[in-house]
Amino acid sequence: MKKQIITLAIAGAMSLALPSGLMAQDSALTSDMIEHAKMIGEKALNSTLTEEIITSLTTEVGHRLAGSANDVKGREWAINKMTAMGYDKVWTEPVTIPLWHRGTASARITAPFAHNMAITALGNSVRTPEGGLTAEIVQFDEYKDLVAAPEGSLDGKIAYVSFRMEDSGVAGAKGYGYAGQARRNGSVAAAKAGASAIIIRSIGTDDNRTPHTGSMNYADGVTQIPAAAISNPDADLLDNVLKHGKPVTIELNLTSHSHDPVVTYNVIGEITGSDEPDKAVLIGAHLDSWDLAMGALDDGTGVAIVMSAGKHIIDGGVKPKRSIHVILFAAEEEGLYGAHEYVRAHKEDHNDFGQTILGAEWDSGTGRIINLEPGVGPTSLTVMREIGAVLAPYGVATLMTNGAKGQSDMSALGNAGMPAVNLGMEKTNYFDYHHTPNDTLDKVDIPAITFNSSIYAMFAFMAASVDVDYMK
Amino acid sequence: MKKQIITLAIAGAMSLALPSGLMAQDSALTSDMIEHAKMIGEKALNSTLTEEIITSLTTEVGHRLAGSANDVKGREWAINKMTAMGYDKVWTEPVTIPLWHRGTASARITAPFAHNMAITALGNSVRTPEGGLTAEIVQFDEYKDLVAAPEGSLDGKIAYVSFRMEDSGVAGAKGYGYAGQARRNGSVAAAKAGASAIIIRSIGTDDNRTPHTGSMNYADGVTQIPAAAISNPDADLLDNVLKHGKPVTIELNLTSHSHDPVVTYNVIGEITGSDEPDKAVLIGAHLDSWDLAMGALDDGTGVAIVMSAGKHIIDGGVKPKRSIHVILFAAEEEGLYGAHEYVRAHKEDHNDFGQTILGAEWDSGTGRIINLEPGVGPTSLTVMREIGAVLAPYGVATLMTNGAKGQSDMSALGNAGMPAVNLGMEKTNYFDYHHTPNDTLDKVDIPAITFNSSIYAMFAFMAASVDVDYMK
Repeated sequence: MKKQIITLAIAGAMSLALPSGLMAQDSALTSDMIEHAKMIGEKALNSTLTEEIITSLTTEVGHRLAGSANDVKGREWAINKMTAMGYDKVWTEPVTIPLWHRGTASARITAPFAHNMAITALGNSVRTPEGGLTAEIVQFDEYKDLVAAPEGSLDGKIAYVSFRMEDSGVAGAKGYGYAGQARRNGSVAAAKAGASAIIIRSIGTDDNRTPHTGSMNYADGVTQIPAAAISNPDADLLDNVLKHGKPVTIELNLTSHSHDPVVTYNVIGEITGSDEPDKAVLIGAHLDSWDLAMGALDDGTGVAIVMSAGKHIIDGGVKPKRSIHVILFAAEEEGLYGAHEYVRAHKEDHNDFGQTILGAEWDSGTGRIINLEPGVGPTSLTVMREIGAVLAPYGVATLMTNGAKGQSDMSALGNAGMPAVNLGMEKTNYFDYHHTPNDTLDKVDIPAITFNSSIYAMFAFMAASVDVDYMK
Repeated sequence: MKKQIITLAIAGAMSLALPSGLMAQDSALTSDMIEHAKMIGEKALNSTLTEEIITSLTTEVGHRLAGSANDVKGREWAINKMTAMGYDKVWTEPVTIPLWHRGTASARITAPFAHNMAITALGNSVRTPEGGLTAEIVQFDEYKDLVAAPEGSLDGKIAYVSFRMEDSGVAGAKGYGYAGQARRNGSVAAAKAGASAIIIRSIGTDDNRTPHTGSMNYADGVTQIPAAAISNPDADLLDNVLKHGKPVTIELNLTSHSHDPVVTYNVIGEITGSDEPDKAVLIGAHLDSWDLAMGALDDGTGVAIVMSAGKHIIDGGVKPKRSIHVILFAAEEEGLYGAHEYVRAHKEDHNDFGQTILGAEWDSGTGRIINLEPGVGPTSLTVMREIGAVLAPYGVATLMTNGAKGQSDMSALGNAGMPAVNLGMEKTNYFDYHHTPNDTLDKVDIPAITFNSSIYAMFAFMAASVDVDYMK
């Protein structure tokens, strides 16, 4: 334990000392830029704006299911808000998306013991036949076992994956990425084995009767079967019922369904750069949310953080050399539709994708930022570490790796070639609430997102002020 | 801080030393009784029976709403279980209760911003008119403000009490008792002022979208209006919407309703005493539960604790002098119907109420027992403290007060004259889950209820073995 503390202390000292030494010799950041960034940061820390924005969004709009009436409301809210805040330009860019409607969901264990279960449809799921579907369930410990089920082995059955996500992180053997396979691809695997439907244990770390929704995929040539998630306590119950060794039947009724595609929009607010206005640093979040709650953590916090960060830069009164685009992506939840469309439009239609010089997203809920991972060219890495050095006294450590591709939406841009930065956060209980009816304002740590807004403001101002090519 | 620790240490030493001194002189407990009680207790601590019982009840039966089909299932389960466990006698005693059906509940803020809310009917509530009820709400900070509303001031309005329960205990200015007034009596106060319905903030300490139900009362001569509770996050949202200062309208739809009275039953299992079998020490819990979950904490834990405690005494192989009755009361939630009927039947019909010599209930969820408060006659108090001294090494302190009237159901018996003991528990998050869809098996602390079963077994064996009149 003691050793760990000492190691951390040394690392902390180094991260402070090293870039500061570099800066003395050949800094790209000027002391004016740094002083101004710190001033913006201090003001941001003492501002209530981030709180006001997320309170306004969750209270006046609520959820923003992509393509829904509330999505329209959210967009109008964002346009009005950014316009009123004094962004130099605010515009939208169209994104065509499939329109999905959640409908109602119910599930009941009918034998050997009767129980109602808390269940929700997975995003994109088709409905059950009229009147519902009653079938025996076949339990699988995890997704890979379901994949191994022979063709025909689930004919007329409902597949059930009972795997529990236990890590609060994205990676790891029991983290979101691994556990989430059952949600994303379970329906295809189950349908290949002949199942009529699939039920999964919620991909979440809580013990509430609040099932976790989330997107799922169908595959060409594979029957589309209904897919839904039960809450963790309901999965515990189902597991206990299964232990009796008798056939377990479930009555499942989903009315979820898809409509014809509709057009929604990315919303962009610009702080126009003084020297090279066509080049832009992007700070982003996604405006859409699932519809079970109010999308406070996912991704109201990101919306509030980047919108307020921009406003703090505006209020600072000094234009950065390049533009800053606060981008609120559309339809992230259904599969990064807004981000993919951004890449397509700007890369193929306008051939101006290279003008998007750097991007950073916030789609991580409510934790404080504790580190910065660059994903830039080898030469500009020095600049990024200079920026990191300014943020270090605020507890943001610059990672030695240089592999960031951007979070969530921004990863689509990162994978298409945009340099990116990931601002990483402390551990939180994000996956207790993620995609559930519990994603409400009270779960937001206001001091933490206020802090994060300050970091984003300082980061974006410096990144857009310095004269560097982040590709190089 | 240090002072507190020292004080506690002295108190602990005294509670151990004092009764032990008494025992040396004129103990009513024999060393055989004590040794046997300790043996039972040790076995109970190492037993999985309490866990098995609560797992069986919640998995095989689920909720036990009084008068429902599941209530019948629960009763059959209890009779079969206690019979199989080797109780000397198992019988039921009829209780006539009003039959209430929860139906469906929905509530939507329709203006100035549209939001769906998580809501549930309060137990006993009447339904809204066919098609629901849309009205402006009038907010009250707490119950006493609603009581002060002038007659006619709420005509055509829905009353809303936003008071938040913040203490995790029953007493205190923000505890269950005080906050619960709005639930129990709010409908009468609202109707007197002319309201068409009442909505309250859930009486609970959590931040989940899981509203808390619970019993409510109507009064003769006062219009019966629908009553429901919204979850804490929904109440937070509603409070935020109200801050905009515009009229807030809600569409409320409840289909809850009452049927003709039905008969349910208290279930009693007897360990027949060797010397005075007609006299009985009661250890009790309530078998019924609300219907939103599986009644694991409320009061599955009590059922499991007292049923297993009895079984441990049976397995110990020594009969106590007086009988022990493990009593599972019916319809506690709706208003102690089973307990009141017990008093009526045994006091008025059979005139044998005095044979019920002492009672202790467990209706406190999942916390470990940390103290014992007697409620007995002045002479027998010495005996109760001797029993307490045996439990002291297990961390159960005997309180110096002698005012216990019995918890929950047992309070009806205590108020009718039965000597009682309260076994008090450590603080838990009981009121996060109480009366909600979250009252599920995963919330139960199995080691804690196993421990409690051990304490109940030791307590009941000793209390029924010693030759004393607890009235005196």
